[in-house]
Amino acid sequence: MTEHTHVNASDLSLEEEASLTSGSDSWHVQGLEEQGLEGYMITDGPYGLRKAKDSASNDVYGSVPATCFPPTAGLASSWNPELTREVGQAMGEECVQEKVAVILGPGVNIKRSPLGGRNFEYWSEDPVLTGHQAAELVNGVQSEGIGTSVKHFAANNQETERLRASSDMDERTLREIYLPAFEYIVKHAKPWTLMCAYNRLNGVFGSENRRLMTDILRDEWGFDGIVMSDWGAVHNRAAALNAGLNLEMPPSASDGEVVEAVKAGELSKEQLDKMAQGMIDLIEKAKPAMSREGYRYDVEAHNQVARQAACESVVLLKNEDSILPLRKGEKVAVIGEFARTPRYQGGGSSHITPTVVTNALDAFEHSGVEVDFAPGFTLDDAAQDEELTQEALHVAKQADKVVLFLGLPEDAESEGFDRTSLDMPAKQVELLAKVSEVNPNTVVVLSNGSVVSLTDWLPQAKAVLEAWLLGQAGGQAIVDLLLGEANPSGKLAQTIPMHLSDDPTVMNFPGEEGHVRYGEGVFVGYRYYDTFDKPVLFPFGFGLSYANFEVTDVSVEKSGKNQVSVQATVTNVSNVDGAQTVQVYVAPGQARVNRPSHELKAFKKVFLKAGESKSVSMSLDERDFAYWSQTMNDWHAEAGTYGIEVATSSRDIVKRVDVEIEGDGKSFRLNEESSMGEWEEDPIGAPILRKKVEELEAEGVHLPDDPNTMILFRTMPMGTVVTFSGADGRKVTRDLLAAYQAVTAE
Amino acid sequence: MTEHTHVNASDLSLEEEASLTSGSDSWHVQGLEEQGLEGYMITDGPYGLRKAKDSASNDVYGSVPATCFPPTAGLASSWNPELTREVGQAMGEECVQEKVAVILGPGVNIKRSPLGGRNFEYWSEDPVLTGHQAAELVNGVQSEGIGTSVKHFAANNQETERLRASSDMDERTLREIYLPAFEYIVKHAKPWTLMCAYNRLNGVFGSENRRLMTDILRDEWGFDGIVMSDWGAVHNRAAALNAGLNLEMPPSASDGEVVEAVKAGELSKEQLDKMAQGMIDLIEKAKPAMSREGYRYDVEAHNQVARQAACESVVLLKNEDSILPLRKGEKVAVIGEFARTPRYQGGGSSHITPTVVTNALDAFEHSGVEVDFAPGFTLDDAAQDEELTQEALHVAKQADKVVLFLGLPEDAESEGFDRTSLDMPAKQVELLAKVSEVNPNTVVVLSNGSVVSLTDWLPQAKAVLEAWLLGQAGGQAIVDLLLGEANPSGKLAQTIPMHLSDDPTVMNFPGEEGHVRYGEGVFVGYRYYDTFDKPVLFPFGFGLSYANFEVTDVSVEKSGKNQVSVQATVTNVSNVDGAQTVQVYVAPGQARVNRPSHELKAFKKVFLKAGESKSVSMSLDERDFAYWSQTMNDWHAEAGTYGIEVATSSRDIVKRVDVEIEGDGKSFRLNEESSMGEWEEDPIGAPILRKKVEELEAEGVHLPDDPNTMILFRTMPMGTVVTFSGADGRKVTRDLLAAYQAVTAE
Repeated sequence: MTEHTHVNASDLSLEEEASLTSGSDSWHVQGLEEQGLEGYMITDGPYGLRKAKDSASNDVYGSVPATCFPPTAGLASSWNPELTREVGQAMGEECVQEKVAVILGPGVNIKRSPLGGRNFEYWSEDPVLTGHQAAELVNGVQSEGIGTSVKHFAANNQETERLRASSDMDERTLREIYLPAFEYIVKHAKPWTLMCAYNRLNGVFGSENRRLMTDILRDEWGFDGIVMSDWGAVHNRAAALNAGLNLEMPPSASDGEVVEAVKAGELSKEQLDKMAQGMIDLIEKAKPAMSREGYRYDVEAHNQVARQAACESVVLLKNEDSILPLRKGEKVAVIGEFARTPRYQGGGSSHITPTVVTNALDAFEHSGVEVDFAPGFTLDDAAQDEELTQEALHVAKQADKVVLFLGLPEDAESEGFDRTSLDMPAKQVELLAKVSEVNPNTVVVLSNGSVVSLTDWLPQAKAVLEAWLLGQAGGQAIVDLLLGEANPSGKLAQTIPMHLSDDPTVMNFPGEEGHVRYGEGVFVGYRYYDTFDKPVLFPFGFGLSYANFEVTDVSVEKSGKNQVSVQATVTNVSNVDGAQTVQVYVAPGQARVNRPSHELKAFKKVFLKAGESKSVSMSLDERDFAYWSQTMNDWHAEAGTYGIEVATSSRDIVKRVDVEIEGDGKSFRLNEESSMGEWEEDPIGAPILRKKVEELEAEGVHLPDDPNTMILFRTMPMGTVVTFSGADGRKVTRDLLAAYQAVTAE
Repeated sequence: MTEHTHVNASDLSLEEEASLTSGSDSWHVQGLEEQGLEGYMITDGPYGLRKAKDSASNDVYGSVPATCFPPTAGLASSWNPELTREVGQAMGEECVQEKVAVILGPGVNIKRSPLGGRNFEYWSEDPVLTGHQAAELVNGVQSEGIGTSVKHFAANNQETERLRASSDMDERTLREIYLPAFEYIVKHAKPWTLMCAYNRLNGVFGSENRRLMTDILRDEWGFDGIVMSDWGAVHNRAAALNAGLNLEMPPSASDGEVVEAVKAGELSKEQLDKMAQGMIDLIEKAKPAMSREGYRYDVEAHNQVARQAACESVVLLKNEDSILPLRKGEKVAVIGEFARTPRYQGGGSSHITPTVVTNALDAFEHSGVEVDFAPGFTLDDAAQDEELTQEALHVAKQADKVVLFLGLPEDAESEGFDRTSLDMPAKQVELLAKVSEVNPNTVVVLSNGSVVSLTDWLPQAKAVLEAWLLGQAGGQAIVDLLLGEANPSGKLAQTIPMHLSDDPTVMNFPGEEGHVRYGEGVFVGYRYYDTFDKPVLFPFGFGLSYANFEVTDVSVEKSGKNQVSVQATVTNVSNVDGAQTVQVYVAPGQARVNRPSHELKAFKKVFLKAGESKSVSMSLDERDFAYWSQTMNDWHAEAGTYGIEVATSSRDIVKRVDVEIEGDGKSFRLNEESSMGEWEEDPIGAPILRKKVEELEAEGVHLPDDPNTMILFRTMPMGTVVTFSGADGRKVTRDLLAAYQAVTAE
């Protein structure tokens, strides 16, 4: 191949340009050999590389071996962006070896409902946690010269009807909940690509949404990469290109339509140039990494990254009597098929063929700890086998402690469908009841990609390790934690509710007849539970440790106009090493809109040796105080008092400090619908109104003055009040506004 | 005046026509003397006549005396449409005497939130109860030759920002919750007029909503009366007339605009003819009653109607140890300022000047029962006066039983603002705690226009009479019930929740920045609480009696295609006369949309002497099983199993009988977005798909067949699946649909 020269799309033929905007097959972009543009491979993530063995195949379950890192629900719980970056870098290295130019991930859609079928590959119910974590995954991958594809843009929060349903929500909800993670990543990690969502947003398909892909993504946020379709998301090539979608995947053999559209004037040449140029730039950007020959990543080193990530992904929910970690010399019974046949990833396009899998039994053996094992139950739907129960009870009785591995079977959660219940399989719950009766020292280890209900059986477990899905090294990580060779440090990235019916989406999930009403608005997850004082089983941000921590010396100081600096000291007051995650929530005071009682704005995970102290510092800026005003069509930080909460979960507030924020100075203007009360309260409007009222009085028109009647009138548009009084209200409104505009235009 | 001749609007000048479409002053329609059309008076209701003393006045608190019947929240609780009709007839008679052609009511907006400021003048959270009750009010009034104005059309469910906020909801919510009461009344009682709402519905002002006033109201429902504006609701005369609004009130001196609009072609002459003709027809319809000279209604008879209505409006919520009724010879302490200064109506445009008011103390005296009285507290915001407390405790200690009158003060609820809390005044709750401590035999009588929270103090009251606002005869009615001279028979028309934060609207009431998201959709009131198994303090439809009843011999039979006849026997198994209200709920089975677990469809109040038995019969038709399908843009009764519940409250189901309903036979058609699964399941589509798949196979295109992968593909549009398989999916979809349409068009 000759030395690279930059290719301009506008120099190409229409046919060549069109060809660049769809793949050459399911997993390759289209190259142009004579231009030196190679058709590189792009393939699935998001928590490991899923490179199809046969590139023409549409079977998602055949792929070359790759490290299976913890699925996102796990990794999210680490609250550790630095760790996430290491995972990303390792994934990038695997892409270099496998000659994959772009890995399709991270998936950053918000977990609107605990039932979402793909929750295991998404991060959180919170956009800040999602954005901060996923940005570092992007940074990690891209540090290797490999692209990422942040998906699914946007508002893709369920599997039911996902290819055609419309996510219906107002602009504030979109801006505050469903876009900020994308926005943060675009601004802080410059991903090479985004992937559009299948679903509609307020009626418009993701692949045809110009407002999202052009107005917001590129013009507002400054994105300079390409947007590709989710696989099969394109309905009309010209409409997609017009909207700002660079690439259709897989190809639908419709490049001819694109050429025709340009000729028919339905798609401008300039727009096609832009879209095709994006593809050229992408290929040129990938070339250095794709040109590295013979690169081999360190399989075992990546397995260790996966192990560390798995360790930090586990959340210790309960540890009564400090039953964990297991002590040397204790006789331990391990029960549950999951200990032998681990569930470590989800189903669908994210499904990895791992390089190696360690189950918990093997890991105990590696660690030199002898355990008695009974499978307890099968992973299929078959009724409970009484022999398995008896065997389990037998080993349980003879042990000092029982570690019971429970979880959701593989077919319970996958891309393609949503769950309909949070319940664990009944036979597992029944086994726990029996086991804990014969041996109360029972520890439960949970394997599940998304939230399950623990409410009914929690009292029967002395300890619970929520282990999510942990990837290929999960078995080893769990044993590390059980034995105290590692210390749990995960925090919940999603609230665990008491009951499914408590969830704010329960009336509107998964929608009907092609529409999903986002009826809860911004009140997703803890934003609902905390604002309306609803009991939860475990709050957002919660997680225990074998260590004990104190957070002291909280100081909150203004560091500029609408800027705040938060400091605190964290001390490990125990004799084991561990980590605590300090969370900063902002609690708005009185506001013109209905705001959540508090929102996560910053966090920091602090690793502390036994007895060690560290100071942490985080900063907040104007945006952290703002809401999206639909009237202003902009972010708006109101002046006022805000609570700054330093916390270790959304319900464990260590200290709250109130600060005065000046606000951004933006103001609402009086208009033809402004009420009498608003005119009276406006510093400019009030004198204008008083003068007008005097004029009217002089003409014999009397505004009402009975105090009770005034309750009605002060809420009415000024013109209506005047009409009630027998004059031409619409004319008076015009006069008032003219006078108001004359002053405000000065 | 000469003998009446029918006037045709089209014969009038533009100026005359325009003049007819606005009032002559705040409370009169415009007449045309030379045409023999008189400008009759129209004035406020809805629970009595509010005829301003000075017709030009905009002060709502000066009006001629009229009977103040129980405000609607009370009357609704009677669950007695026949009684409601008597009230309506009495109101009609008062209109005849006062020469008022149209009384502005009933208000039939749904109580979406317990905080709604005007809930006291609305009926219920349920559209069937609302429609059945309000239709009889209309029938009663109109039987006297007087018109009603059913208001506010539509979706006017709060006071906050009511003149400009947009009620944003989907069509199913509108059709199933917010329109059915209007629809029922239009179809069953033919009201002379409707009043448009101030607010917007999905962005369109009530006064300019052609879809509501013309397409739905007139074309679909067959309404042949006129629509007038709420006072001050018109923003643009031509737009309003075009939309189907006949009358602007009060006039804004803009008839000239109407004439100009016709000349400019912005308003057609035909539409103006229609709108003006409606006004002429209204005047002609009112003429007989308006021509009755010297008519005088029977003031005392009307007071007795008000007393009976008040009696049936009271709901007995609790009666521990049968503490009520009071027994002869018991020493009774009456505590609470409300016993002397009753709160019997709400504030705003409904405010009546009563003919006479009886307070409870007077009524005890009339009944010959001596009681000790202490006011206990003042009705203002002042801090509790310790002397009043001590006086109350003093009389409480010396009594056998205490009747404590508590309630919301006058300024707590009115047209013009919404409440922000369900709490009772703290000083009253504290007084109850002290009184019940010195005398546990404490009965609470509540006066409040809309739901208050009883959760925290309910254990301290042995009995609770929820007396709402009862109109001028309320004091007497309460004493009738306390003494057992009447027996409580009211049932809750609205759920009493445990906490305000339990309400499904809590995230979205009262909205912000000009928009109110009806995020709960159809899950209003018990439709939410019952569907999602939420605890409530007292369920919808609940109410006790001094008598005991049994409901037996429930039979549910098919009486035609999609028609069901329900029968039951109600027996008074006590030795006091009383009434029980039998409620029929329909519980849909599996449905394509997310339906409430059950919905009220019919009810009957049965009066039974001690020991008496009666059989009741109710019928259900196709509509009672239907939901509004947005896809079909029509009502749709799905075939399937439905539960028919015979109940005495939404949570006291006496018996449930399952019936099979054939359904309306409407079906969903396959379209370009139909999924592979839907093609496979459609009886016509499946063979067409099979044939196509064979053709594709012959061409070497293989659809996926791995079972796990198929989970993903069966939910995808057929064309997308084909594209994935390497063929032109959009072309294949066109072929499939052509074949499908060829068969279905046959």
